[in-house]
Amino acid sequence: MKPSGIVTLLSDFGLADTYVGVMKGAIAQINPALTVIDLTHQIPPQNIAAARFALLSAIPYFPVGTVHLAVVDPGVGSQRRAIAVILGDTLNQPFSLLVGPDNGLFSHLVSPLGNQYPILTAVELTNSQYWRTTTPSSTFHGRDVFAPVAAHLATGVAMGSVGEEIAPDTLVKLDLLPVQQQQLGADLYKVTGVIQTIDHFGNLVTNIPASAVMGKLWLVRTTAGQLHGRQTYSNVPPGNLLALIGSHGWVEIAVNGGNAHTQLKLDWGATVEILVSDGEIGEVAG
Amino acid sequence: MKPSGIVTLLSDFGLADTYVGVMKGAIAQINPALTVIDLTHQIPPQNIAAARFALLSAIPYFPVGTVHLAVVDPGVGSQRRAIAVILGDTLNQPFSLLVGPDNGLFSHLVSPLGNQYPILTAVELTNSQYWRTTTPSSTFHGRDVFAPVAAHLATGVAMGSVGEEIAPDTLVKLDLLPVQQQQLGADLYKVTGVIQTIDHFGNLVTNIPASAVMGKLWLVRTTAGQLHGRQTYSNVPPGNLLALIGSHGWVEIAVNGGNAHTQLKLDWGATVEILVSDGEIGEVAG
Amino acid sequence: MKPSGIVTLLSDFGLADTYVGVMKGAIAQINPALTVIDLTHQIPPQNIAAARFALLSAIPYFPVGTVHLAVVDPGVGSQRRAIAVILGDTLNQPFSLLVGPDNGLFSHLVSPLGNQYPILTAVELTNSQYWRTTTPSSTFHGRDVFAPVAAHLATGVAMGSVGEEIAPDTLVKLDLLPVQQQQLGADLYKVTGVIQTIDHFGNLVTNIPASAVMGKLWLVRTTAGQLHGRQTYSNVPPGNLLALIGSHGWVEIAVNGGNAHTQLKLDWGATVEILVSDGEIGEVAG
Repeated sequence: MKPSGIVTLLSDFGLADTYVGVMKGAIAQINPALTVIDLTHQIPPQNIAAARFALLSAIPYFPVGTVHLAVVDPGVGSQRRAIAVILGDTLNQPFSLLVGPDNGLFSHLVSPLGNQYPILTAVELTNSQYWRTTTPSSTFHGRDVFAPVAAHLATGVAMGSVGEEIAPDTLVKLDLLPVQQQQLGADLYKVTGVIQTIDHFGNLVTNIPASAVMGKLWLVRTTAGQLHGRQTYSNVPPGNLLALIGSHGWVEIAVNGGNAHTQLKLDWGATVEILVSDGEIGEVAG
Repeated sequence: MKPSGIVTLLSDFGLADTYVGVMKGAIAQINPALTVIDLTHQIPPQNIAAARFALLSAIPYFPVGTVHLAVVDPGVGSQRRAIAVILGDTLNQPFSLLVGPDNGLFSHLVSPLGNQYPILTAVELTNSQYWRTTTPSSTFHGRDVFAPVAAHLATGVAMGSVGEEIAPDTLVKLDLLPVQQQQLGADLYKVTGVIQTIDHFGNLVTNIPASAVMGKLWLVRTTAGQLHGRQTYSNVPPGNLLALIGSHGWVEIAVNGGNAHTQLKLDWGATVEILVSDGEIGEVAG
Repeated sequence: MKPSGIVTLLSDFGLADTYVGVMKGAIAQINPALTVIDLTHQIPPQNIAAARFALLSAIPYFPVGTVHLAVVDPGVGSQRRAIAVILGDTLNQPFSLLVGPDNGLFSHLVSPLGNQYPILTAVELTNSQYWRTTTPSSTFHGRDVFAPVAAHLATGVAMGSVGEEIAPDTLVKLDLLPVQQQQLGADLYKVTGVIQTIDHFGNLVTNIPASAVMGKLWLVRTTAGQLHGRQTYSNVPPGNLLALIGSHGWVEIAVNGGNAHTQLKLDWGATVEILVSDGEIGEVAG
């Protein structure tokens, strides 16, 4: 896989300090011709699940051979491994390189249709020749280890050079709440999931993929009430709630012109049930 | 007009999610050599008037042939048109390309001297060959329609290729509060406007252009009191209010070293009157 | 010193308005091939000391010949000078160019080991040929003076062209709170400093350099209690306080997985004492 020359950055560093700028400086010291793009730096501090979702929602929209550098790293300074992995697309072809701590950030990366983006190769970053210094700070591996390695990989250094190969199935996996499906009748089933993220507009994004409801009639139920699945915001009047397939590819609950998070007072992890049918959905006890 | 190779981005997406990063990915998938510059992504959600003001304040400072992509799009998924326009400078020469929804974002673009930046050409984005996908998300045209079209235009694709020409006078216009001028005497007139934006420092920016007061003596009156027009912050002691011509080219009310918004408790849309004279301004009933 | 082609930006402009985007436009109008990197735009309004610390923490991580543009400028429009300086590394070799107002922003730039980054050359920006306009706005020299000059310097224009040389020792110096050291015994001394900045994670960064405690046993005392110096977050259980050498190279107080600022209620300027010894530190009246 030829590098695209693009490095993306994702972190929980915020933008008030110079941490992000300093990582960009460390990259430029290695190769000032790389293009650096911010995914976001406002991951809630040390929230690995939120970082995983952000990666998941962004990776497919970058060129093949892009390096994604993700630093949400509560274990910095401990024995947690520093890693780089080659991520495949849904056809198992090499697509992206991911660099960061081995803490679950890169686990459960799936497409909106529920297909896995597989980790094809993984290495532990043991070759300090590609670090900024052989004595990295104990608290800022983003600057001293990850950014330099990402810059080298984006410049064409081989994965095999930056460290020793490790088995992908030894990587840390996040313990995510599962999506469950229960058959309620010949033509009716129930999908149960949770709110996995809440965006800037207050849209409540569930972990239930589009594939669970596409082409069906569906009814979303939460502790705050129930809603029929819709196509788009303009299907309801301004100020009204709707459930739709969001741009990420997951079922989400939104308010046309408003903020569902504020209005419904549902939060991260709240349970969401969807009744799905090929025909009309009447009153169901389920 | 030759493209400058620069694409600017403006939205109400905030920086907490990956929406902005994803638009940059979609642009890089088309042409990774483009330079992408953020104007701001903190437009208040769905506030078209604020987005228009931000565009207005930024467009003149970019090279000829820059593409400005603006996504404040409450009507996404409805029948609102997606458009690209060629904006002229105050001499009617082609200056910039603007891409976004047809909802008033690109209306009333005027220079600080009150001259119109004219829309020379407009097209509706009907050619899905230049979109990321022929079946765009119903909620994120920024990623699936606008960013790809902007990237193609910035790469040299002709306006005529991305859609069908439409008459500029059919574009949606914002309904803005007008600036009014009233003659009070041989040498005295009153200009009435409103606060059209409030910046990060709490400066209250009116919609009264510099041209209304330049070279005159002037006195600003609000419900919070009156102020003589000044040149610069250092004309008053720290902590004091002043009225001046701001860097945008509009009359603004500020506090030297402080926050006029907090101090005066005036908000968006509050009325501002200015008495203007070639000579001294005494007590006037107004 | 050959320019690196990189310009960094630091300001108190925030990201809600288009001020930062407009400075990037002004740079692109001069040389669109430059790489522009944000250090931060969230310096507390007009806080020169915070801006100085941010510069200090970032400059060493950029390539030789990088231009750092810093606009925290409460005196804009007054008689304060506009300057550019060549900063040396700790061996007195030219390293970076700094452009901004002469208000103390560039004073007391020291390495984590306490060495001065010397100002080798300084010029006052008197040559308006390199400004965006010979009649700059009285409130936005970032756009009209500093960004254009920075772009020209980054493109290879000589320092001597943009203005007249001035003596580095005539530049404004910040009046910083000093670090004091007091001998308490043969093998024991006390270092007294203050909290000089608080980062996004709530880490309390003192102005006491790593060099004061490296290789020693040390004990930090504040009004909120005392802490033994540690290596890294994982030396204490989650939720616990620790004192360590931060990635900036200063002693800082942090909480593993938490927020020391919130937990200790210590703020900017709070006094911090450190007892330092080659051996064990017992109870000391100090």
